[in-house]
Amino acid sequence: MLFHVTMDVAIPRDLAPEVRADLVARERAYCQDLQKQGTWVHIWRVVGRYSNVSVFDVGSSDELHDILWNLPLFPFMTIAVTALCPHPSAL
Amino acid sequence: MLFHVTMDVAIPRDLAPEVRADLVARERAYCQDLQKQGTWVHIWRVVGRYSNVSVFDVGSSDELHDILWNLPLFPFMTIAVTALCPHPSAL
Amino acid sequence: MLFHVTMDVAIPRDLAPEVRADLVARERAYCQDLQKQGTWVHIWRVVGRYSNVSVFDVGSSDELHDILWNLPLFPFMTIAVTALCPHPSAL
Amino acid sequence: MLFHVTMDVAIPRDLAPEVRADLVARERAYCQDLQKQGTWVHIWRVVGRYSNVSVFDVGSSDELHDILWNLPLFPFMTIAVTALCPHPSAL
Amino acid sequence: MLFHVTMDVAIPRDLAPEVRADLVARERAYCQDLQKQGTWVHIWRVVGRYSNVSVFDVGSSDELHDILWNLPLFPFMTIAVTALCPHPSAL
Amino acid sequence: MLFHVTMDVAIPRDLAPEVRADLVARERAYCQDLQKQGTWVHIWRVVGRYSNVSVFDVGSSDELHDILWNLPLFPFMTIAVTALCPHPSAL
Amino acid sequence: MLFHVTMDVAIPRDLAPEVRADLVARERAYCQDLQKQGTWVHIWRVVGRYSNVSVFDVGSSDELHDILWNLPLFPFMTIAVTALCPHPSAL
Amino acid sequence: MLFHVTMDVAIPRDLAPEVRADLVARERAYCQDLQKQGTWVHIWRVVGRYSNVSVFDVGSSDELHDILWNLPLFPFMTIAVTALCPHPSAL
Amino acid sequence: MLFHVTMDVAIPRDLAPEVRADLVARERAYCQDLQKQGTWVHIWRVVGRYSNVSVFDVGSSDELHDILWNLPLFPFMTIAVTALCPHPSAL
Amino acid sequence: MLFHVTMDVAIPRDLAPEVRADLVARERAYCQDLQKQGTWVHIWRVVGRYSNVSVFDVGSSDELHDILWNLPLFPFMTIAVTALCPHPSAL
Repeated sequence: MLFHVTMDVAIPRDLAPEVRADLVARERAYCQDLQKQGTWVHIWRVVGRYSNVSVFDVGSSDELHDILWNLPLFPFMTIAVTALCPHPSAL
Repeated sequence: MLFHVTMDVAIPRDLAPEVRADLVARERAYCQDLQKQGTWVHIWRVVGRYSNVSVFDVGSSDELHDILWNLPLFPFMTIAVTALCPHPSAL
Repeated sequence: MLFHVTMDVAIPRDLAPEVRADLVARERAYCQDLQKQGTWVHIWRVVGRYSNVSVFDVGSSDELHDILWNLPLFPFMTIAVTALCPHPSAL
Repeated sequence: MLFHVTMDVAIPRDLAPEVRADLVARERAYCQDLQKQGTWVHIWRVVGRYSNVSVFDVGSSDELHDILWNLPLFPFMTIAVTALCPHPSAL
Repeated sequence: MLFHVTMDVAIPRDLAPEVRADLVARERAYCQDLQKQGTWVHIWRVVGRYSNVSVFDVGSSDELHDILWNLPLFPFMTIAVTALCPHPSAL
Repeated sequence: MLFHVTMDVAIPRDLAPEVRADLVARERAYCQDLQKQGTWVHIWRVVGRYSNVSVFDVGSSDELHDILWNLPLFPFMTIAVTALCPHPSAL
Repeated sequence: MLFHVTMDVAIPRDLAPEVRADLVARERAYCQDLQKQGTWVHIWRVVGRYSNVSVFDVGSSDELHDILWNLPLFPFMTIAVTALCPHPSAL
Repeated sequence: MLFHVTMDVAIPRDLAPEVRADLVARERAYCQDLQKQGTWVHIWRVVGRYSNVSVFDVGSSDELHDILWNLPLFPFMTIAVTALCPHPSAL
Repeated sequence: MLFHVTMDVAIPRDLAPEVRADLVARERAYCQDLQKQGTWVHIWRVVGRYSNVSVFDVGSSDELHDILWNLPLFPFMTIAVTALCPHPSAL
Repeated sequence: MLFHVTMDVAIPRDLAPEVRADLVARERAYCQDLQKQGTWVHIWRVVGRYSNVSVFDVGSSDELHDILWNLPLFPFMTIAVTALCPHPSAL
């Protein structure tokens, strides 16, 4: 089941640089693991913003919440979730 | 080059049923042609709304405008365009 | 899987009274069928508005879209869908 | 009498971890007590957000205010209250 | 129990003048009856708008909904309801 | 002349507790003085929020500004003022 | 006492031209009468819009409401009223 | 003096096709005349919308208002005007 | 040429009192100088807010920007500028 | 390919003055280099705000993202990007 998720990131300026670097590295690894598993099916950067647009394929909305809640950058993100379904014109 | 496009459709109630049916059929054919050409790369229905979320892969923003402007349902759509680019964590 | 759905209804003034009455009756029957099946688990009226707040328990977001799209009053509703999951403090 | 309440939580980053842990534990106990009393009838997590959607069954709006005002996390919440009533189609 | 209610009125231009006059007269009578009963405790006009700000004293939110739903001008109003309670500084 | 005033209060977390207590006590005394003088004619708490809805009866808008500007909690309030006048249906 | 008023005008397209011309002429005369009386102290056009920004000097908010309610174009205006008072830096 | 102007066009569906065609042709001629005079210095289409972003170079804001007010499509446009000035980093 | 300007002031709580007092005094002197020169033609306080509504008469939009940019409180203001022109009904 | 970009700048008050001066100088040099290359084709200041409106001519949306992401003031900017295309009435 597909969900459209936008994530706007705002890391506080006063976060220690090594903490920030560690968070960003863990976020990347976490994201790539989920891509390999086929769960995080798309991720694009929004031009000019520290934001992404993503599509997830999950077994349930609970599974999606667990994934998002455990994003290393979750405390610094504003997230919006939209449920998707197949479009009748899609090939 | 990728663009994220949302289309909210509101066909007027007083449109003649055969005009409506013709428009919807032409919209579908138009959409499927562009999918076959690899231009309209994703289209999903938004759950509970007469709306879609799409991703287009075009050579320029001008090409995207021509595609959208010629959608059979264009006069009855509210369209929002967001430029995308590759995400550094994308595999 | 649970979804929170709000429906704001705006039936056009110029709809023939018998068409309106038929739609409202069919909406009611449709809603009560889904309640009996355990799919439409809650429906409340919002005080002072022609709106409801509902909770659906469905097997997938696609199933939810089919239900909403086929609401007899769908053409006259503005619908907002929010994915829910169990709260860790819920008993 | 039923009220729909949404709570968006934003605990400041600089709150001491033990203060935060204590607040969260007290919030949970407070919430579960009210569930046992039949006052806090539903609580769901919103997918992807530190937010909940709840329904309260109270004797008066004053009682609801006392409950909300005394939430341990009240100072860090944005709360929206909507009065509900039975829907004519509810079984 | 007190509720703060704002009502913005927009009567369609094409309503027959005698229908309009009848509706407005019935709205007035309905409002004054509820004032005499002590239910509609305040009604003020908003300067420069066809709107009012009102306060109702009702036994329950269901009672409030019944009152508002049966306003003769209800189909032409946008209504917002806010639950109130006594302020600790009120004398 | 009547004005409808909403006040949303947000006292900073880092205000010294005794400063906060003093401000709140002075706010209360200030409010009750104006109630006794017949100027601050209504004050209600908004359910679930640190906000009030008030009605003032003043000789001029200048007088209202002086009152609001000198509220002890003014620096921590967001205030919205709406001019009211008698409603033709008010008894 | 001063009030800042913005008026956005939207005359329906299907209003008979002579009705429209009559309304606009009466609006102008009404406005100029109030300017001569010193009540409508400023009126400016907003560049690029069928809107004005005005300042009224009235004895009370009730007087202002009567003036606005009786504007010939009132049914086709969206009006916003803001109470003003002397600025301490004004000469 | 430069002004940034956005124009969103919404021509009513029921406008006679020949009236529409005439308006659009006159709009184009009007626009091109002003370009030739060096007044309408830029006009771009917004991708996916019946909207433009323009920059005008005029002697005064009054002159700009006259230009916009006399656009053949003015009755069907929503216009927003922003005053610009030279940027200190501009070459 | 006239411009309508609103200024909302939010001086940070942690600004040293003498810095604040100096800024406010310089703002006042700056404002009064411009009033004497006939440039800052109106300034009113908005009732209940630390905001003003002003009208400037300047030779160009560049001149207006220079004036606003150099306001002593500029770093703590949110400013909105609207171009005005004479209203055809103004005497 | 053209993009319309607005940048609202908010440099934190507590940034060391020499860091701020360095950032602003580097922003200026960066901007002027891109102007010389024909990439940053327009930049205007918005009157009364620390904001600019710009137009970029780039080979792709990816190139635009790289440019914006590397702006020295990027961490302190809110950026909005709108894709443009030639207007049919442009000469």
